Amino acid sequence: MSRHRIVRTSRRVPQDVLAGLAEAGAATVHEADGRRGAVSPDLRPIQAGARIAGSAVTVSCHPGDNLMIHAAVEQVRPGDVVVVTTTSPCTDGMLGDLLATSLRARGAIGVVLDAGVRDVAELRAMGFQVWSRAISTQGTVKASPGSVNVPIVVGGQVINPGDAIVADDDGVVVVPHERAAAVLEQARQRAANEDAKRERLAAGELGLDMYQLRPLLEKLGVRYVDES
Amino acid sequence: MSRHRIVRTSRRVPQDVLAGLAEAGAATVHEADGRRGAVSPDLRPIQAGARIAGSAVTVSCHPGDNLMIHAAVEQVRPGDVVVVTTTSPCTDGMLGDLLATSLRARGAIGVVLDAGVRDVAELRAMGFQVWSRAISTQGTVKASPGSVNVPIVVGGQVINPGDAIVADDDGVVVVPHERAAAVLEQARQRAANEDAKRERLAAGELGLDMYQLRPLLEKLGVRYVDES
Amino acid sequence: MSRHRIVRTSRRVPQDVLAGLAEAGAATVHEADGRRGAVSPDLRPIQAGARIAGSAVTVSCHPGDNLMIHAAVEQVRPGDVVVVTTTSPCTDGMLGDLLATSLRARGAIGVVLDAGVRDVAELRAMGFQVWSRAISTQGTVKASPGSVNVPIVVGGQVINPGDAIVADDDGVVVVPHERAAAVLEQARQRAANEDAKRERLAAGELGLDMYQLRPLLEKLGVRYVDES
Amino acid sequence: MSRHRIVRTSRRVPQDVLAGLAEAGAATVHEADGRRGAVSPDLRPIQAGARIAGSAVTVSCHPGDNLMIHAAVEQVRPGDVVVVTTTSPCTDGMLGDLLATSLRARGAIGVVLDAGVRDVAELRAMGFQVWSRAISTQGTVKASPGSVNVPIVVGGQVINPGDAIVADDDGVVVVPHERAAAVLEQARQRAANEDAKRERLAAGELGLDMYQLRPLLEKLGVRYVDES
Amino acid sequence: MSRHRIVRTSRRVPQDVLAGLAEAGAATVHEADGRRGAVSPDLRPIQAGARIAGSAVTVSCHPGDNLMIHAAVEQVRPGDVVVVTTTSPCTDGMLGDLLATSLRARGAIGVVLDAGVRDVAELRAMGFQVWSRAISTQGTVKASPGSVNVPIVVGGQVINPGDAIVADDDGVVVVPHERAAAVLEQARQRAANEDAKRERLAAGELGLDMYQLRPLLEKLGVRYVDES
Amino acid sequence: MSRHRIVRTSRRVPQDVLAGLAEAGAATVHEADGRRGAVSPDLRPIQAGARIAGSAVTVSCHPGDNLMIHAAVEQVRPGDVVVVTTTSPCTDGMLGDLLATSLRARGAIGVVLDAGVRDVAELRAMGFQVWSRAISTQGTVKASPGSVNVPIVVGGQVINPGDAIVADDDGVVVVPHERAAAVLEQARQRAANEDAKRERLAAGELGLDMYQLRPLLEKLGVRYVDES
Repeated sequence: MSRHRIVRTSRRVPQDVLAGLAEAGAATVHEADGRRGAVSPDLRPIQAGARIAGSAVTVSCHPGDNLMIHAAVEQVRPGDVVVVTTTSPCTDGMLGDLLATSLRARGAIGVVLDAGVRDVAELRAMGFQVWSRAISTQGTVKASPGSVNVPIVVGGQVINPGDAIVADDDGVVVVPHERAAAVLEQARQRAANEDAKRERLAAGELGLDMYQLRPLLEKLGVRYVDES
Repeated sequence: MSRHRIVRTSRRVPQDVLAGLAEAGAATVHEADGRRGAVSPDLRPIQAGARIAGSAVTVSCHPGDNLMIHAAVEQVRPGDVVVVTTTSPCTDGMLGDLLATSLRARGAIGVVLDAGVRDVAELRAMGFQVWSRAISTQGTVKASPGSVNVPIVVGGQVINPGDAIVADDDGVVVVPHERAAAVLEQARQRAANEDAKRERLAAGELGLDMYQLRPLLEKLGVRYVDES
Repeated sequence: MSRHRIVRTSRRVPQDVLAGLAEAGAATVHEADGRRGAVSPDLRPIQAGARIAGSAVTVSCHPGDNLMIHAAVEQVRPGDVVVVTTTSPCTDGMLGDLLATSLRARGAIGVVLDAGVRDVAELRAMGFQVWSRAISTQGTVKASPGSVNVPIVVGGQVINPGDAIVADDDGVVVVPHERAAAVLEQARQRAANEDAKRERLAAGELGLDMYQLRPLLEKLGVRYVDES
Repeated sequence: MSRHRIVRTSRRVPQDVLAGLAEAGAATVHEADGRRGAVSPDLRPIQAGARIAGSAVTVSCHPGDNLMIHAAVEQVRPGDVVVVTTTSPCTDGMLGDLLATSLRARGAIGVVLDAGVRDVAELRAMGFQVWSRAISTQGTVKASPGSVNVPIVVGGQVINPGDAIVADDDGVVVVPHERAAAVLEQARQRAANEDAKRERLAAGELGLDMYQLRPLLEKLGVRYVDES
Repeated sequence: MSRHRIVRTSRRVPQDVLAGLAEAGAATVHEADGRRGAVSPDLRPIQAGARIAGSAVTVSCHPGDNLMIHAAVEQVRPGDVVVVTTTSPCTDGMLGDLLATSLRARGAIGVVLDAGVRDVAELRAMGFQVWSRAISTQGTVKASPGSVNVPIVVGGQVINPGDAIVADDDGVVVVPHERAAAVLEQARQRAANEDAKRERLAAGELGLDMYQLRPLLEKLGVRYVDES
Repeated sequence: MSRHRIVRTSRRVPQDVLAGLAEAGAATVHEADGRRGAVSPDLRPIQAGARIAGSAVTVSCHPGDNLMIHAAVEQVRPGDVVVVTTTSPCTDGMLGDLLATSLRARGAIGVVLDAGVRDVAELRAMGFQVWSRAISTQGTVKASPGSVNVPIVVGGQVINPGDAIVADDDGVVVVPHERAAAVLEQARQRAANEDAKRERLAAGELGLDMYQLRPLLEKLGVRYVDES
């Protein structure tokens, strides 16, 4: 019997938590979660200035085959982010403006694609947000099975259906569903904390002093030398 | 006797066909040609929003040596796209604003470069369109022979002189000279067809239904599972 | 005894020389220095349109550890460019908006980073210029020693403290401190020379004639062939 | 509170199951598990001819820091395979002959390392089996925390402590602990099946006939053409 | 109508020419053909010491799909080399010991694979020669169409059915069918010539003198400097 | 005036120091020099089991051009290691058995090549040791100037003429000429120290105890957890 399946699930992160995570941004959320969840920097946005957070609908495709993205559309709910990987490395253009139109009609707010995207001029014009490994004209087939809403690995991170995906100009971060609310709390504290630090640094205070790093440098044996 | 040569040829795709291919764009043209001709996504545009089609003037250079691009300028006719490769991988800045000025004076509308480009600020200001593997300050010499208007391989695709080059934000596609008109015909049908599909998808119809993919999923053994 | 050190040095390139180098731009400066100093094209700007030149404050960090960038801030003088490498390859986000705020408060005009950067939306909004190997959300620790103002290798080039760093849309070039003034002189001559050439090329003169390349092609055995 | 932890666990795959998986080999096991578990081919053996299977002791390290491998040694039981990743990409020599000596003293039969290894001449002489991303002289520090026996991602695959690791000249495959016995059963059936096929193919029967692929080719529209 | 086809062709290079090319080896043949035909060094042998030459049976597959290799087996004649590419980059294990058994039964002497291979322990034991981009456990499907005996691009080189493939420890070189005999003639002259040179160099004569390079160095402005 | 030069220098590391460094091996020497000098792991040996140390004769070539290696042969003294880089990345076969024969006639004991090598079957048969970035059939020209015995960068490390090069199965390490004797002294102490450690680890003592790492783990907040 086939191991491939499409899971119907209502596992989602609450919209207010997602709104908070989007406001915090990917780097802050990553720090707030104990420096976890950073998807490989090889996945880059096709647009500048976007900052989104949504619940993951996960998709596992055969390389060069986007059949399962079509199957995933039906599982999308408003506010979701579709996250696609392939069973072996692929840069083909797995998603274009037609699929994006379909995803948007279902309420998807963006796509994270460990593969390639195409029709980027149209996607930018639509304001449809995509983070991908490549931009490629290469088309795909619809011939091989895969799965929807199963755990996948994207850019070195495990992503489960319903996990929070935070993506912006810095890249993509995943927060497990069960930690999302706690991480938001941490992120807010961290952001407040950073505002204070930013002010002190802007005023000329050194990180060496603010973070009390001088004793550490000394302990590590780093010497100060005046050039003769 | 040397195998290097500069071929004077009048092989060109008619301007009205090129205009149609440019309007269709690289991804659609690639699909219309049976998913052929997609140059590697490693070649990226240095500008956003360009969409061109022209007949290829091909150039084969020694790595780190742009002598043959100078030789190629003389073979350029208005509307041509100069396509450059090197005999082994190279990211040096083989083309800058001086060569671009010279190419534009001959009527070239863009360059595809399986190597590096430089002076990109100037090229962007000029509106001179380039797709390249790298942006690099590294300069080149003029010392070793090569060829102009011979068949070359760029990003995994064979390009013959006079082939149609279609390039935009998605990357670069080549269509063989002899298929250009037929591919344009296909591309137009495809574009019309896509408009209809886009409308249906925007209205919420699923690709699963529109493309009749549900029986395929079933045949492939993909099961639907409700998360308990 | 530890080999790690922070060198206090006043070695700087004069501001008028730096201003001239910035005006010339990275590619021209590279040519003017006999085609030397081109840092690998893998280091790319996070912004378009910047063109800077400054004296290098060099930093060597452990991978995934930005402790020594904090130590380097104190050594920055107005107009400096901070140049960071790691002792083995690293794409982590070693620098964000807090460190950039601190560097700007000390007068740094930019950063060259053979690693990753994050908070790029904020950095772009600040107008803080960065050239880096990656953009990454991945955070770093402050645990391992390194050095400031020692010779380092970045993108295949040796950079000594106080060397001139020239960076723009084409990438990053280094000019050794002792050659900076002479290279500027060469760059100015070259730029003037290029203006004349550009005018001739724009008027349709061929590089083959202007650079007298026809005899070279003949000597190299490159034949002209008319397609039958 | 720190998120880093060392988990003491007795989760292991039974030795007879492991022995069977080793006999089947990585590729067959991967097929038997529905083509799952193939770790990236970037991880290569440092020796030829090894074929092992063991239960995973997982280790997550900071890049350039092998502190946690030392911590992992204590968790090793006879027959285990130590599987190491880093929180961002790293090719440093995280393991050498001293650590291998220590691991062998505890009964480890091999190491899978999503990083670099060194002292390979000594390791080969010892007959200590390693699969790694790189061979590198670059040394590491012991300064930053990490975890032992937590889920990790190695070469695109999730590995949990106690999962079965099968590694040979073809690379590394992981089988989840709970599926190990069933996969062995499948692998044995598959191997028997393959013996019969091998004999028929060796006798000249075509895969086209044996797998009944001719109708598929026809359905896919693949035409036979005789060269004129 | 589908563009995919399987071409039955008798285009082969004569066995005596192939025997001569194999004796010359890949690097010498490449030089003898005017430094043409070198397939990317990313394709490496899975064994040491092999040196073969055969006529190419070419195969174009969908990534992750080896259906067309099965179709190609029927087109193989004794002494052929099967050359496989994919329509987009792929490292999956497209060929294992079963397919190799089938190919050998038809007389194939080796495979060049711009993708991955598996069962390498078995292939080495069989003495079946393979050059590939990767070694990978990852399995493939048989679902998508492709072509046999059409022109393909492998590692940057065009390979037509019936071209001569020369492969050894240095890698893979292709010689077009129509040039094979002439290139062999050149290779033999070159080899004889090299024997004489080798003797002179072994006796201590410098290449600077033997190739008369001193005037060239002087003309290029290379100065001799004695270190003070 | 050209910046290219061939420097005649007698700067060499004494043979007894080199013999000691070879005995210690690359990884130990790297550690003994404070973890400095590790050339990128992308440079790999073409043979197994070699372990050499020699004084560097450095060569800087244009990519795809080995003219300056020919010029370097004359500067080689018995026991030297020739270290070659190119002014931009290159994988061409810059060195083959003829050049190796010439180098051996001058007493060179090996070559480190930040480029490609060919004729590896012949080189292995000769027992001529090479570490390179690639193995490639691609030939080169002799047309462009470069330098011999100037400082170069290879695999991220600065190498000056006369520096000690230590290379083995682990890769390549450079030790500056002025530190070679002191590093040997450190390496010997380290090796003796390692022998004692190896014995204790083989007897089952844990590195956690031997290196007193338990307090560090505790300080870093790493917790021990028993799986329920």
